[in-house]
Amino acid sequence: MIAVEMVRLLAARRDVVRKIAELKRQMGIDAIQPSVEASVRQAMMDEAAKHGVPPETVQRLATLLFADAVELQQKPKTTLTHFDILRRAVELQREGYEVQRLEVGEPDLGAPIEVRQSVAEAVLGGFARYVDSRGISELRTMLAKHVFEKHGVEIGPENIIVTPGGRFAIYLAVKTLLREGDEMLVIDPSWPMYRQVAAFVGARSVHVRTRLEEGWTPNVDEIAKYISPSTKVLILNYPNNPTGKIIKPEIFEKIVELAESKNVTIISDEVYADYADRHVSILDKTDARKHVLIQSYSKSYGMTGYRLGYVVADESLIGKMASILGLVMTCVPEFIQHGGLTALRLKEAPKEYAQIMMRRIEIAVNELEKIGLEFYRPDGGMYVFPRIGLGNVDGMRLAFELLDSKGVAVAPGSIFGGYDDFIRISLGAPEQTIAKGIRLLGEFLREKGKR
Amino acid sequence: MIAVEMVRLLAARRDVVRKIAELKRQMGIDAIQPSVEASVRQAMMDEAAKHGVPPETVQRLATLLFADAVELQQKPKTTLTHFDILRRAVELQREGYEVQRLEVGEPDLGAPIEVRQSVAEAVLGGFARYVDSRGISELRTMLAKHVFEKHGVEIGPENIIVTPGGRFAIYLAVKTLLREGDEMLVIDPSWPMYRQVAAFVGARSVHVRTRLEEGWTPNVDEIAKYISPSTKVLILNYPNNPTGKIIKPEIFEKIVELAESKNVTIISDEVYADYADRHVSILDKTDARKHVLIQSYSKSYGMTGYRLGYVVADESLIGKMASILGLVMTCVPEFIQHGGLTALRLKEAPKEYAQIMMRRIEIAVNELEKIGLEFYRPDGGMYVFPRIGLGNVDGMRLAFELLDSKGVAVAPGSIFGGYDDFIRISLGAPEQTIAKGIRLLGEFLREKGKR
Repeated sequence: MIAVEMVRLLAARRDVVRKIAELKRQMGIDAIQPSVEASVRQAMMDEAAKHGVPPETVQRLATLLFADAVELQQKPKTTLTHFDILRRAVELQREGYEVQRLEVGEPDLGAPIEVRQSVAEAVLGGFARYVDSRGISELRTMLAKHVFEKHGVEIGPENIIVTPGGRFAIYLAVKTLLREGDEMLVIDPSWPMYRQVAAFVGARSVHVRTRLEEGWTPNVDEIAKYISPSTKVLILNYPNNPTGKIIKPEIFEKIVELAESKNVTIISDEVYADYADRHVSILDKTDARKHVLIQSYSKSYGMTGYRLGYVVADESLIGKMASILGLVMTCVPEFIQHGGLTALRLKEAPKEYAQIMMRRIEIAVNELEKIGLEFYRPDGGMYVFPRIGLGNVDGMRLAFELLDSKGVAVAPGSIFGGYDDFIRISLGAPEQTIAKGIRLLGEFLREKGKR
Repeated sequence: MIAVEMVRLLAARRDVVRKIAELKRQMGIDAIQPSVEASVRQAMMDEAAKHGVPPETVQRLATLLFADAVELQQKPKTTLTHFDILRRAVELQREGYEVQRLEVGEPDLGAPIEVRQSVAEAVLGGFARYVDSRGISELRTMLAKHVFEKHGVEIGPENIIVTPGGRFAIYLAVKTLLREGDEMLVIDPSWPMYRQVAAFVGARSVHVRTRLEEGWTPNVDEIAKYISPSTKVLILNYPNNPTGKIIKPEIFEKIVELAESKNVTIISDEVYADYADRHVSILDKTDARKHVLIQSYSKSYGMTGYRLGYVVADESLIGKMASILGLVMTCVPEFIQHGGLTALRLKEAPKEYAQIMMRRIEIAVNELEKIGLEFYRPDGGMYVFPRIGLGNVDGMRLAFELLDSKGVAVAPGSIFGGYDDFIRISLGAPEQTIAKGIRLLGEFLREKGKR
């Protein structure tokens, strides 16, 4: 049977990979070698062309082989996760300890009272019927207008789908743009959700590193090297979680050009866009319908638990997303969408929330400078990502140590793509919590003999 | 190069597939042959096991091969759907025509005022933070108690996950129980969502037919014949959409026995359970943790647009579901869960709603008898599924004709698994709409010269 013969070859290939992996380890070389992968891919494509095998199928086979090979070479994974930190922090609080909660990705702002009132009224008024899977048309129309006011890009309600939060917006984009075996480029450090959702849909996330020394600016030539014929998506996230970086318009433009020249769709996750004085959006740079914008009410309007977000994209892609959303949940509750309408009318609330965040950035920056850590001064967003400077450490273990000894909960840098010597400090907490947490972090590091 | 050798084999396999496809076409056989695929998969898995190749990788390779093979053989699909009927009905209404809307799967009851008030209060009170992906613990505890009161089965909050509606509950069950290429048995006629969600997760739905002549009772021996080594799930839905059938406890028991003897998990979708005088639940028949119960607030409490449902299952399965729900949407909005708490305290509301439905069943039955159609008298649920008796017709086209000529919107039987000579009449509408719609249906059939 031919299929069985293919499994035999797969096994033989794994033996070879294992031997090469050993050599790579000895020589300290990365598991993923874009140039090697590219040449194997080319050889496979050439062979496929001879036999009339469609390129799509061969690309998927190639990606499957590479993903398997990389898995073979991976270090054993740590069993602790970000969530364990959160759980431990809550546990300590229940036991009566004071904990500076700087690990959560949720602002403490809450929704404006006008939003609360409008949702309450809509619930009482019975606005709780099945509605259009894309969202009620009033909200989509108003969002289109909102996008026009912000970016000057003319889009219509047909370019928008309302989702239960930014996460679902990202899930829909990834699910509709990538088939199993396709590749999605992610610029590290990155929010772990991206790699998780790629794996969830059977795609492969390929990671391009950026460095604090270079101000977390991505190197466009390096991104180009990682683009293969299987690369369908590049995900951008500025203001960035965890670094607070906003890239310069020139760099953004170059990345968009590169993506377009390679037929790669950009998913631009801009949920922190309102927490910044200036901002570069995918909508400023190119035709809105060529790429995908992810937005959410969680940060701009403090509406985290309402679960309300949206996607801006090409009408046909929105249609595919609507089929999925309709299949798995019919629609976003109508009364919550009423809250979305009201929020858009509040021009001051997002500005106020942004000012609170910018003040918190100031405070974090001052405190971090006092304890002498290296970090990139956030351009916006809700996080600071300092280097703790302990060198080769297990980041997760360190975060637990910091929590248990000083009562400071942070997200270890390891979860953002193996940045073990960094921690993410969330600014979703009040000013005094941020200041106290960073001072205690300083104590912790001094006691470690590192400061 | 081994990778290139694999491309050569892939090409050879395509040649074989092409030849077989030609034979299949000549003999009128379906492109997809579950039993053949299952045996190829098994052979591949066996070979992989010999060489220590991980099952995930081989499953992925198998799926790639089968998807490629099916693409080679595909026919064009039909273009009209149930949704087009709904859209056309709304269009006609906008143009000023009177339409009897008997196509929608949504009761017109609305949520009890107590539920509305509690959700409104929770929104105003700021209960809108990120919460446990499984649902807030008060609600899960109360649901566990509710299940105990109803079925006498002791489960804990750890056996429950709160979901955004019954659809998402089903999606989670299907996604966690089936891997790509696995099979799910569905008893037809069936709600189209089941086959759609199976396809969505890359699994295959395999359909066992039941007949009006046998009172829609499934034949257990026939179900047994369709179970293959790839069958992981059997989905049951009683009270049934579209037939209103509730199977006898003995039959339910036999099906459970069969499933357990074959290691098949039952997903029991019981969202219409409260719309019945008597009911058989998966929880009455076996250990609650062996199978999966799907429940929703949409029917029992008229809370359709709230999007609130839940799953009862084994703790480890609930954990997997929580990871998925957490990944794609963090949690169900906290204030909606407060509404779920309040609803459980209302003992009369579900009974009232059930009485309304039972009365509507009476009316539909009387009217259908008057126009002389054959049908199974619903034991419960929200639908009647009469045979229109036109013989070999295109059900979708007929539904459009009925809508355009008489202003009666129904769901064509074709979408429930090719029952083209049947229509589904929804009882989600007021009594007079149901009566009038059926009378107009009678006119339509008389004019067709069939009554």
